[in-house]
Amino acid sequence: MPSSNVFQVPDTVTMDKIVSLARRRGFVFPSSEIYGGLGSAYDYGHYGVLLKENVKARWLEAMTRERDDIVALDSSIILHPRVWEVSGHVEGFTDPLVDCRFCKRRYRADKLDESECGSRPSKRPGETEKCDLTEPRQFNLMFETRIGALEESGQDAYLRPETAQGIFVNFKNVAQIARRKPPFGIAQIGKAFRNEITPGNFIFRTLEFEQMEMEFFVPPAEAEQWFRYWVEERLGWHTRYGVRASHLRVREHEADELSHYSTMTSDIEYLFPIGWSELEGVAYRGDYDLRVHTEASGTKLEWTDGEERYTPHVVEPAVGVNRSMLTFLVDAYDEEVVAERERTVLRLHPQLAPVKVAVLPLIPRKEEIVGKARALYEELRRAVVAEYDDSGQIGRRYRRQDEIGTPYALTIDEQTLEDDTVTIRDRDSLAQERIAMSGARAFVLDKLTEDWSSPKAA
Amino acid sequence: MPSSNVFQVPDTVTMDKIVSLARRRGFVFPSSEIYGGLGSAYDYGHYGVLLKENVKARWLEAMTRERDDIVALDSSIILHPRVWEVSGHVEGFTDPLVDCRFCKRRYRADKLDESECGSRPSKRPGETEKCDLTEPRQFNLMFETRIGALEESGQDAYLRPETAQGIFVNFKNVAQIARRKPPFGIAQIGKAFRNEITPGNFIFRTLEFEQMEMEFFVPPAEAEQWFRYWVEERLGWHTRYGVRASHLRVREHEADELSHYSTMTSDIEYLFPIGWSELEGVAYRGDYDLRVHTEASGTKLEWTDGEERYTPHVVEPAVGVNRSMLTFLVDAYDEEVVAERERTVLRLHPQLAPVKVAVLPLIPRKEEIVGKARALYEELRRAVVAEYDDSGQIGRRYRRQDEIGTPYALTIDEQTLEDDTVTIRDRDSLAQERIAMSGARAFVLDKLTEDWSSPKAA
Repeated sequence: MPSSNVFQVPDTVTMDKIVSLARRRGFVFPSSEIYGGLGSAYDYGHYGVLLKENVKARWLEAMTRERDDIVALDSSIILHPRVWEVSGHVEGFTDPLVDCRFCKRRYRADKLDESECGSRPSKRPGETEKCDLTEPRQFNLMFETRIGALEESGQDAYLRPETAQGIFVNFKNVAQIARRKPPFGIAQIGKAFRNEITPGNFIFRTLEFEQMEMEFFVPPAEAEQWFRYWVEERLGWHTRYGVRASHLRVREHEADELSHYSTMTSDIEYLFPIGWSELEGVAYRGDYDLRVHTEASGTKLEWTDGEERYTPHVVEPAVGVNRSMLTFLVDAYDEEVVAERERTVLRLHPQLAPVKVAVLPLIPRKEEIVGKARALYEELRRAVVAEYDDSGQIGRRYRRQDEIGTPYALTIDEQTLEDDTVTIRDRDSLAQERIAMSGARAFVLDKLTEDWSSPKAA
Repeated sequence: MPSSNVFQVPDTVTMDKIVSLARRRGFVFPSSEIYGGLGSAYDYGHYGVLLKENVKARWLEAMTRERDDIVALDSSIILHPRVWEVSGHVEGFTDPLVDCRFCKRRYRADKLDESECGSRPSKRPGETEKCDLTEPRQFNLMFETRIGALEESGQDAYLRPETAQGIFVNFKNVAQIARRKPPFGIAQIGKAFRNEITPGNFIFRTLEFEQMEMEFFVPPAEAEQWFRYWVEERLGWHTRYGVRASHLRVREHEADELSHYSTMTSDIEYLFPIGWSELEGVAYRGDYDLRVHTEASGTKLEWTDGEERYTPHVVEPAVGVNRSMLTFLVDAYDEEVVAERERTVLRLHPQLAPVKVAVLPLIPRKEEIVGKARALYEELRRAVVAEYDDSGQIGRRYRRQDEIGTPYALTIDEQTLEDDTVTIRDRDSLAQERIAMSGARAFVLDKLTEDWSSPKAA
């Protein structure tokens, strides 16, 4: 129950506010900052790691632990180079780029009207006499490297631009061992790399990122039905973990947007501070990948069961871990004025929150209070990620926990010494309740596992 | 309590047996197999992913959740190239290589006596007239790539050969936010890449691997004490999760083995099928890394607290996820004859086992049995990774679970229909007990969280 002097600040979540909070609280830092940074690369601090691990765990749970029809895989970042020739990525995974001979900048030819001129940022490239653009050239988005030994005898290779191909080339191995017939899926979380020009917008798009991809193999006749199923299912995952339904929408790709392997794709878009943008893509890849790898390798990547024999079709929901994390941060970000003081709070779903409960001794110099607080902390940390904070005014400590999204804070005070009760403070409602210290662990565990529906306005 | 007809087969764990089991049960596959493979690259199947995730989770827990003095970090694989120039890796992270002009093979000049001649495998390279070796050349072990745009204007970059540098260059950001003074640590799990010649031995050494590294920053005077502390602490972690103490030993590096940044290193070695080899390294890196990055970047990577100001020294325990996983597999692998039938069993620590409990309906065609079994399975899977298996003879199903290391199997039979009891079978002792179905979940959870000491002979 929010107190009456709590009111919502109008929706003013900007990317700058998210970047600032993420840095201030150690979620995300610009990578290699002491050497001037490396455009569009970020490192994740303590709370960033915990949040990211939770996002990945919830995805993998939803894909594998809660279902019987999907198994996990973790394939290499560097696959055999033939994989990318056959998949069509060497030929087709390109962007058209133009250079400005004057300002030496490079732009995507198909995004000139979204770019700023390097010489006159108020103009679009090509709109001023200071621009002298080259003809577009196709640029492959895969990072190249070389395996083994010195230049002359090495083998060219690529850093994978998607995890999906590692799934397709393992199809036979996995299907045999998983003892499953279609429909069944293979899920993978891992790093992918795209050598893109003008990436940006914080962790929305980075050269190096983590993907959560699942390839669902189905009988061809059931493909459209499963495509629709996975759009709904994935939409439900985002809202289940707290993203406002009103900030999500589904947009079908136009024919000219489709990837070379897909005939039908829907994006689940989120209302980011930069506008509606892709959060997750659900692509119908047909039999494209299994078919081309079968033809090129001679290994039959198909389903067979005595009489039955066919190449399954593929429906693929794919979402970036970092982009999903950004979505949860943006959607959870809130500012409000409580008792005439401002606070910033991350209303993260408890199952995503980096820290589940904080233990705060009200008077950190009082030995009996510290003793009780440490004992409670030791008990809690065995069950959940807990934090002990004895530094600074209690109000400041609450605000710190609010900013990292800790759903519960337990305060040990003078009264604890008399009756072994503690106050539990709810991050969202700010309600404070006194409960028995002996029941605190069970209280918190119950709260964390109860069905949680977003307390945020839709 | 092992039954009297259970006896240990002599210790005959070979790498081939591990490779075969890993493949047969879908733990590990050779990568890109349909295109002829890619030397020393492996993909992880369902149980491999689960085991690997458990290894990582236990390490991160031990480093961060169970302690107050270590925070987590996840830095980029591609850092600013200056990082690797300054760290000394561009200059010093090399192997001396020789080529054979005759058989076109390449060897490590310092490992010629461990290599086979390409033309005559019974000989060492250079020991037969068929060999014509070049002079050694230094070869850098870092994979190179290029960031951004077309060849002429890109920026050379490297795939990190260790995760540690990402920690050092973030030292200031993390230390400020973590609000900690030395001794404190920063822990990181992530992929690293080493462009090595003649790697091999399954997942013991691969071009692409995952590291678990922790840099512990200490006052210089305490460095030796903390070095010894971390050797013991890490040794204890491996035994805590079931590795036999008798298969572990600590070996101090000789002066000529030390890396360019270290003056004292101890390896925790494990008795692999290939002999005693490094499992984990604990390196004393002194102030080398923070000092060189301070000098090169101008950013003071030091500890300061008003009067106090110094560059902390670093103690680093670093272990490969894949190598740790191999160790757990090898140490857990067992073959025994039970009632005149052989079985292979992975005696994995329950907290590492991919699947915690299997639910097996004895008669899979009997509706009431299936109903009870599914209900129990649905209850269990909410708490732990569970598996439902109704395919094949019950003995075959037990053996399958033994081979993936599932500590408990619950069987639902005719008697369940009468009195709602199930049998619980213990993977290691093979003891079977009847327990109330309503208590099965609590029984399994208790077993999983109880202090577990290895039932294996030391």
